Amino acid sequence: MRAVDIIAKKRDKQELTSDELKFFVEGYTRGDIPDYQASAWCMAVLLNGMTEAEATALTLHMARSGDTLDLHPIAPFVVDKHSTGGVGDKTTLVVAPLVACHGLPVGKMSGRGLGFSGGTIDKLESIRGFNVSLTTAQFMDMLAQHGVVVSGQSADLAPADGKFYALRDVTATVESLPLIAASVMSKKIAAGADAIVLDVKVGQGAFMKTVEQAEALARLMVKIGQGVGRKVAAVLTDMNQPLGAAVGNALEVRETIETLRGGGPADFRQHCLTIGGKMLELAGKAGSLTEGERMLAESLDNGQAWAKFVEWITAQGGDRSQLENPDLLPTATLIETVAAPRGGFIAGVDAAEVGKTGVDLGGGRAKKGDPIDYAVGILVHAKVGAQLAQGDLLFTIHANDPAKLEAARQRLLAAVAWSETAVSAPPHTLMIIE
Amino acid sequence: MRAVDIIAKKRDKQELTSDELKFFVEGYTRGDIPDYQASAWCMAVLLNGMTEAEATALTLHMARSGDTLDLHPIAPFVVDKHSTGGVGDKTTLVVAPLVACHGLPVGKMSGRGLGFSGGTIDKLESIRGFNVSLTTAQFMDMLAQHGVVVSGQSADLAPADGKFYALRDVTATVESLPLIAASVMSKKIAAGADAIVLDVKVGQGAFMKTVEQAEALARLMVKIGQGVGRKVAAVLTDMNQPLGAAVGNALEVRETIETLRGGGPADFRQHCLTIGGKMLELAGKAGSLTEGERMLAESLDNGQAWAKFVEWITAQGGDRSQLENPDLLPTATLIETVAAPRGGFIAGVDAAEVGKTGVDLGGGRAKKGDPIDYAVGILVHAKVGAQLAQGDLLFTIHANDPAKLEAARQRLLAAVAWSETAVSAPPHTLMIIE
Repeated sequence: MRAVDIIAKKRDKQELTSDELKFFVEGYTRGDIPDYQASAWCMAVLLNGMTEAEATALTLHMARSGDTLDLHPIAPFVVDKHSTGGVGDKTTLVVAPLVACHGLPVGKMSGRGLGFSGGTIDKLESIRGFNVSLTTAQFMDMLAQHGVVVSGQSADLAPADGKFYALRDVTATVESLPLIAASVMSKKIAAGADAIVLDVKVGQGAFMKTVEQAEALARLMVKIGQGVGRKVAAVLTDMNQPLGAAVGNALEVRETIETLRGGGPADFRQHCLTIGGKMLELAGKAGSLTEGERMLAESLDNGQAWAKFVEWITAQGGDRSQLENPDLLPTATLIETVAAPRGGFIAGVDAAEVGKTGVDLGGGRAKKGDPIDYAVGILVHAKVGAQLAQGDLLFTIHANDPAKLEAARQRLLAAVAWSETAVSAPPHTLMIIE
Repeated sequence: MRAVDIIAKKRDKQELTSDELKFFVEGYTRGDIPDYQASAWCMAVLLNGMTEAEATALTLHMARSGDTLDLHPIAPFVVDKHSTGGVGDKTTLVVAPLVACHGLPVGKMSGRGLGFSGGTIDKLESIRGFNVSLTTAQFMDMLAQHGVVVSGQSADLAPADGKFYALRDVTATVESLPLIAASVMSKKIAAGADAIVLDVKVGQGAFMKTVEQAEALARLMVKIGQGVGRKVAAVLTDMNQPLGAAVGNALEVRETIETLRGGGPADFRQHCLTIGGKMLELAGKAGSLTEGERMLAESLDNGQAWAKFVEWITAQGGDRSQLENPDLLPTATLIETVAAPRGGFIAGVDAAEVGKTGVDLGGGRAKKGDPIDYAVGILVHAKVGAQLAQGDLLFTIHANDPAKLEAARQRLLAAVAWSETAVSAPPHTLMIIE
C-alpha cells in the first residue's frame, strides 16, 4: 500500500477501505507518511467528502492511534458530553456534577479556549489550585472515588487527532464535516465513554453557522458513534446569542455556582437540564428526557448538585473558599455597566462579537499558548425578545484596562440589534438527533 | 498575506490574484511556505481548477522564480519545441538541426526519460562524448556559433517548477491541467524562447489519453504563452502507436541519422516536417506550414540538415565516427526478430506496452537516477493499417539478457491487435491549435 495511491483514490472520489484508512492514519501518526501527503489527502477529503462508512473507519483508526481508556473496571457505564464550542458555554461545569450525583459516572477530557470560544479547562483553572493535568491513574482514581473527573486532553489518547488537527489548522482543511466528526468522536471513543451527548451549537457564535450544516455534522457524529457501538445523541442548540449571562472565565464559574445552587439564568439552567437529562436517558437512569430533566432540576434545587460540585472541585485541588465565597475568585479592577442607549425590543446579541470582546479584554487567546486573564469578561443582561427602556441595564463589563473597557463598551453596543416591534424569544433547543 | 488564506480561497473556488500567486510561488521557492501547505494548495487547484488568467500568472511567477535567459544579444529570435512525451519520440534530434540550417536558432533544454516515455537527453548521451551539462555561458556560446544547442534542464531556471514537480509526484497532484501547463510553459519562458511549438501527444502511449484532454491542455498552454507575449502553436499528434520504428536510445539515434540523410520511417519524417515547419512559420521564415515543410524536406534530401547535425553534435563533444558509422553506437549482444504469428491487418500496436517493454529491456528508468542501457530497444516494423502475412517481420528486439529478450517477445506479441478486415491508417496530426 502506498500513501500516494490512497490520496489519488480520494482525489478521484472513490471510497477508501478501512484498511487503507488504517494504513494512512497509522503511517501519519508514526511519521512514515509526511505532512505534505497528509495535507493533500485532507484537502481531497474536504473537497470530495467521505461516506459514513469511511468516516466511521477513520474515527476508529484515529481512536486506536494511541492509548485507549477502559473505564469499565471502575465504572460499568460512563457518560461523556461534548460541545462544539460557543460563547458563555460553561455547561460541563454544571452538568458533570449534576449527572454524577445521580450515580452516573462522568469522566471527561476537555480543551482550552481558542478564538472566541471559551474552554472548560481555562474556566476550571480560574479556581485556585484546580489541577487539570491528571495522569491516567489519577483520572481513574478520581472517577472511582467521586464519580466525576474533568482533565485536560491527554496527548496519549488519539494522538493522530492532535497531528491532523495541527496540520488542518494551517492548510485550510478545518472545515470538513468528516474530519471534524472524526476529530471529536475519536477522542471521545479513546477516552472510554459508553454514551456521549453532543451539544452541537448553531449560529453566529458557533463554528456551524446554519442548521443544515449543524444537522449534517450531528447526524454524521451520531452515526459514527453508533457505528462503533456507543450510545450517542446530538442536541442542536442556538448560539446566535451567548448562553446564559456570563462570558469570561471566573465570571462563568460564578454563574456555574449560582446555577448549581438553584439559581442562574433561565436559559442556561434549562440548557443544562436538557444536556444532562439526555445523558441520564442514554444511560438508562431516566425513562425519558423529560424524566431526566425533572430529576436533575430537583438536584439543582435541593443542594445535591452543589454538594457534588464542591466534592469534585476540591478533590481535584480547587480552593473550597472560592466556591463558598465567589468574591474570592479572580476579580477585575474595573467593573462598569452599559445602559441601553434607546428603548425597544432586543432582536439580537451577536454571540461572536461578545466572544471577541471577551478575548480583547484579555479573557481568551488569539493563538495557542497565549496567557489569559481569568477575571475579565462580560455579563449580558438582555436576551433576545426582551423589551427594554432607554437606560436599562444591557451589559456589565469586567476589565483590567481602561482603554480595553472603552473599546469593549463600543463593540458591545454595536453587537445589539434593536427592533421597534415585539420580537419573540427564539427556541434554544432546535433539534435532537439520535 | 498568509499562505493559509490563499489555500482557503482556492479551496472555496475563488480566483487567485497575480499578487497572491506571486506570494505563494516565491514563498514556496524560498522555503518560507512549507511543502504541506503547497501540497494542500496543489490538491485544491487540481480539484477546483484555475482560470486562464490564474494559470498565466502562475506560469509567469514560476518562470521568474530563478534565473531567466535573455538570448536576444546573440540571436534576435529563438524557437523552441516541447513534446509532452511519447514512445519513439526522437523528434528534437532531427528538428533542431533541421530548423537551424535555415538560419533559425534553436536553443533548447530537454529532460531525461521517466516511466515509458524516453528522454532526449538520454538519447543524445548514447553518443560517446556528447555533453549535456552546459553552463549558461557554454549554452549561449553554442547557440551563437552553431545556431543550435540542446542541454539538460538548468536547475537555476524556474526552480519553483522543480520543487512543485517533485511534490506533485508524491501527493497525487500531477494530473492537473493548469499545473501541467504552468510546469511546461514556465521552463520554456525562463529559457528565453520567442516562439514555441508544442507537440502534444494523444493516446495509449501518452499522458493525455483522449483528444479532449489533449486539446484542453494544448489550448491552455497556447493561451498562457500568448498571454506572456510568446508565439505559440500546439500540434496534437497520435501516440497510440510508437512514432517511427525505433524505440530505445541508440536505436533512435540511428533512426535520426537515417532520417537526416533523407530516409527513415515515413511517419517520423512527416512528423518532423510538421513540427519543424510550424517552427519556421512562427518565426516568419516560411509563409505557411506547407512552405515550411517543403523547405525542410529539401534540407533533409540535399544533405544540409545532416551537415548541421554533425556540426552540432561534434560541437557538443559527440563522436563524429559514431554518426558516420552508426554501427559504432552502443549495440546489443542479442538481436532477434519477431515474426507475425498470423496474417491479417494491424489494428493497433500499443505504444505504452512497447514503451514499457523498452524499459524492461533496460532502456528506461523505473525511478529517477536509475542507470540505463543505451543499446537495447525495439524496432517496430508494422504500422497500423498494414496488411501482413504469417511470418512477416513484426519487431526486432535488441537485448543484452536472454530472459528479458524472451519476456519482451511475449509482451510485444500481446501488444499487437489484429483485424480480419482492412484497417485504415489513422491520421498522425490530429489538430493544430494556435
